[in-house]
Order: sequence, then C-alpha cells, then structure tokens
Amino acid sequence: MYKHILIATDGTDLSEKALHHGYTLAKTLGAQITVITATEPWEAIVVGEVAVVLPPEKYEEMAGSHAAGILQKAKELAEKDSVTPHTVQFQDRHPAEAILETAESKSCDLIVMGSHGRRGLSRLVLGSKANEVVTRSTVPVLIIR
Amino acid sequence: MYKHILIATDGTDLSEKALHHGYTLAKTLGAQITVITATEPWEAIVVGEVAVVLPPEKYEEMAGSHAAGILQKAKELAEKDSVTPHTVQFQDRHPAEAILETAESKSCDLIVMGSHGRRGLSRLVLGSKANEVVTRSTVPVLIIR
Amino acid sequence: MYKHILIATDGTDLSEKALHHGYTLAKTLGAQITVITATEPWEAIVVGEVAVVLPPEKYEEMAGSHAAGILQKAKELAEKDSVTPHTVQFQDRHPAEAILETAESKSCDLIVMGSHGRRGLSRLVLGSKANEVVTRSTVPVLIIR
Amino acid sequence: MYKHILIATDGTDLSEKALHHGYTLAKTLGAQITVITATEPWEAIVVGEVAVVLPPEKYEEMAGSHAAGILQKAKELAEKDSVTPHTVQFQDRHPAEAILETAESKSCDLIVMGSHGRRGLSRLVLGSKANEVVTRSTVPVLIIR
Repeated sequence: MYKHILIATDGTDLSEKALHHGYTLAKTLGAQITVITATEPWEAIVVGEVAVVLPPEKYEEMAGSHAAGILQKAKELAEKDSVTPHTVQFQDRHPAEAILETAESKSCDLIVMGSHGRRGLSRLVLGSKANEVVTRSTVPVLIIR
Repeated sequence: MYKHILIATDGTDLSEKALHHGYTLAKTLGAQITVITATEPWEAIVVGEVAVVLPPEKYEEMAGSHAAGILQKAKELAEKDSVTPHTVQFQDRHPAEAILETAESKSCDLIVMGSHGRRGLSRLVLGSKANEVVTRSTVPVLIIR
Repeated sequence: MYKHILIATDGTDLSEKALHHGYTLAKTLGAQITVITATEPWEAIVVGEVAVVLPPEKYEEMAGSHAAGILQKAKELAEKDSVTPHTVQFQDRHPAEAILETAESKSCDLIVMGSHGRRGLSRLVLGSKANEVVTRSTVPVLIIR
Repeated sequence: MYKHILIATDGTDLSEKALHHGYTLAKTLGAQITVITATEPWEAIVVGEVAVVLPPEKYEEMAGSHAAGILQKAKELAEKDSVTPHTVQFQDRHPAEAILETAESKSCDLIVMGSHGRRGLSRLVLGSKANEVVTRSTVPVLIIR
C-alpha cells in the first residue's frame, strides 16, 4: 500500500489529529513518513502598522522559530506513536504550494491533512489550503475532520 | 486502523480507481467494506421533453438497473482484488446525502471517493459531491485523484 | 457601467430569477444582453442502459429542442421585462466552458448566474458550474441566490 | 434596482477594485453604500511566539488602527468617485460572518467583494471568505476578479 505518507501540519488541534491519524496509518502499513509545515510570506500575514512591530527580518525569525516549534511538537507526538518521521520546514511559501511540491519531489503516495486551518468559519466550506491541495494533487488526499 | 471502509462509486473510471484503492487498503488492514452507489431523483436528471421518452416509472426502472450494473462491476473488481464488499444501492437520493447517511448508519470510519463525478470541467474545481461529503462528514474522507 | 451583460440559464427557477435580475439591471443601465444556455455532451448525461432509449442522435435532437425551449422561455421573460436579449445555444459543451468563452468572444463585462443548477444538495456548497465560472472568469460574476 | 450596496474590503488591491466597482454601480443606480471591514480575532492571526511581541491588547489596538486605515482609504477612493459611503468596522469577527450579519441588519440588497483576500494561491480556488459569503448569503453577491 502506501510507501511514503506526507502529513501537513500548521499546529492546530485538527493538525495534531491529522498527525496521529497519519502516524497510525503509516505504522500499520510500514510506510515512511514526512511531516511538513510551511509559514506564509511576510506580506501575506503582516498588514498595515503591524509591520512596525514586525519588520520582515523579525517576522522571518519568528516564523522560523514558530515552524520549528510545530515540527518539534510533531516529533513528540511521533514518539508517543512510536514512529520516526522526517520533517520539512518551508518559509515564505504558500502552504498548498509547499505541500504539493514536497509530495512530488519526495514521491509521496498519500497526503494527509486537516479540512481546515486556523482560519475561517470552520466547517461550512472546505478550507482554502485543503481545497487547493485536493484540486491540484496527483496523489490521493486524506482529509481529516 | 480502519474497521469499516465506505467506498462510493458512480461507475466512472475514477470511481473504479477509488474502488481498487479502497479494496487494497481494506484488505491490507483487514477492514470491512461497503460499496455504495446512488442514483439521483428523476427531477434532478430528466428535463424538458426528455420526460416524454423517460417518464418517472421508466426512469426508476432504468436507474435501478443502471445502479445494479455499477454494483455488479464493483463486485467483479472486488473478486480480482480478493475482497468481499457489502453493497448498498440508493435510488432517488442525492448521492452526497446517501453517502453521509450510510457512513453514519453503518459506523464507517473512512469514506473513499473520487474527486470528480461524470460531470464538470474535471480537475479545475473539486466536484460538488466530493465537496459536499468532505464538508459534512464526521469521519476522514480519502479523495482519489 | 456595464455595456454587455451575459446571463446563463439552465431553465431552473433560480435561473429565471437570474434572468429577471440581469434583465432589470441591463435595462436600468442601458446594457446589451446575451442569454446563454448550454447542454452537456451526451456522455456526461447518459449512462448505462439509458443509452438504449437515448442514443446519441436522439439525445442531440432532444437536447437541442430542450435548449431551444429554455431560450424561448428566456425571451418570454424578456418581453415582460421589456428587454431584447440576444440568445446563444451551445450543445455538447460543458456549460462553464461555454459561458467563459462566450463572455470573452462577445466582450461581456458582467456574467450573471444562479449559485446552483438543477443538481446537488442545493445551498450547502457553491454549485460546480458557478464555482468553475467564478474561479476562471476575468470579468465580475454576479451570483444570484 | 439596488437600494443599498454592501462592499467588503480588506485593503488589498482587489478590494480597492471592488470598492471602485461598487461605488460606480451605486452612483449609477442612486443606491446607498456601506463599506465594511473586519479584523479577525487575535487567536486566528497570532500564533506561537508572535504572541510575545503581539499580546492580545496590543493586537486589538493595531487591528483597530489597521481597520481604521482601510476605511480611511475607502473614503478617499469614495471621494474620487464622488460617493459618500457609510463605513462599518468589526473587530474580533470572522469577516464572512461580519459581512453576512451586516447585509442582513442593514437590509442590503447586494454584496460586492473580491474573489480572494490576501492569502492563498490567488486564482486557483475561490477564496474561503468569498466562498462562505456566497454559500450563505440570501442576497446576490457580485464577485470581483
């Protein structure tokens, strides 16, 4: 079955559910695991006067540190589930793009992710990242609810 | 892992890919399988003068026979994959509704389906059935591409 | 403001609402109107044994006649609203494609259409045709609810 | 035709296009205009250690000031277009919710907004805010591209 599962996380509770789900599936199937997190470009996040407090270089530093924290958490969850994932950290990249490129470059045969990120009216519409991934992926996408 | 996988098919090539994918996954995991197909209500399909050739009762007969053919094909594919699915046939039901209700009533813990049905500009947007299922499901949805 | 408004109809009640809405807007603004309807390719509609009763040439004839009826209805509604639309009928074309191409070839500066067609769980997700049009159009799209 | 047009802006170029479009339409039709901007709750924006630099009260202050700047810009554009909009500023609200509630409470008969906000892979899928508004609105939604 799956040989290499890519799990996307943005540090939300639903992402942690996706991690545990993907870990358990990979463990059962003996698949390799890559966990990915991506932080968006400064201009996508920082607006108006927030830029005074968060200049680009400060944002980069924090985004990097924030992403590292998310991956650290993913590793701790992995330890509990007795799996050993690779981790990939992207900065300044739209998450959907980063996920699709990584799935291709690493020949992953399944993408696992939550239906929603941190934003939006939760469950009423599919989150835009999941929507972008599922409409552009060439491999199956397992959407966690 | 999964105990009972629900696979939705509408008889398209992508559905057959979803069947094979779901069968293989279920077999690997020792999960039970239910295959579902649903044919839409007469009023959703038949328009205008087509109704002259296809009155409701004739449509029902054909839709039933068509759905039975789809499930028959699903069983043949199952035999090749050495699995034994249950099959469920709904008539006069919006497919997304039928899929969600069946997943709930049978306590399925995974839904497998193609990203698109027979209609639409294929891959540019998520098919409306998959979209409806993925935004309303309480269990994970594996979208086949 | 708008010089040429394209209104898409598939003969549903919501389409008639879109027609009336588009007509009134065009009349108020002195804009030209084109009404478009498209019937899908035979293979998108006709499945399984329905093909016995509806062979391609019979389907073409009925689809053409059905589309003509939809445009006839659009003209009657136009007369009530005291406007004089052009009408365009496409056969064997995915409706979203036909709408986008016509908007471009006729230099329409607004597309008016219902949020949903005949199918789907109505209002829970945006209909796939409207979704396709709104994500690919280069001009504004007025979605009628 | 329209008596009261609600235009949503988040300060992006596409929002400014939506403002100019909505202003021109309102002016032509003699409609009242309300411009709305909403800033998301702190927890939707601020993650991880960014919270060290941006504690809730600081975020509130900046978000308020940022929103005020967006509305100020909307008023300047209005002056150029010779219209006089009302403006509404929401804080700590999911934008789609704020837009829908305002449309209802003020009896607006049209919502104008861009297809995308600041985020996402731009035009590949409909932005999640526009998607939420268009699937839940009871009045027509004019999506600007």
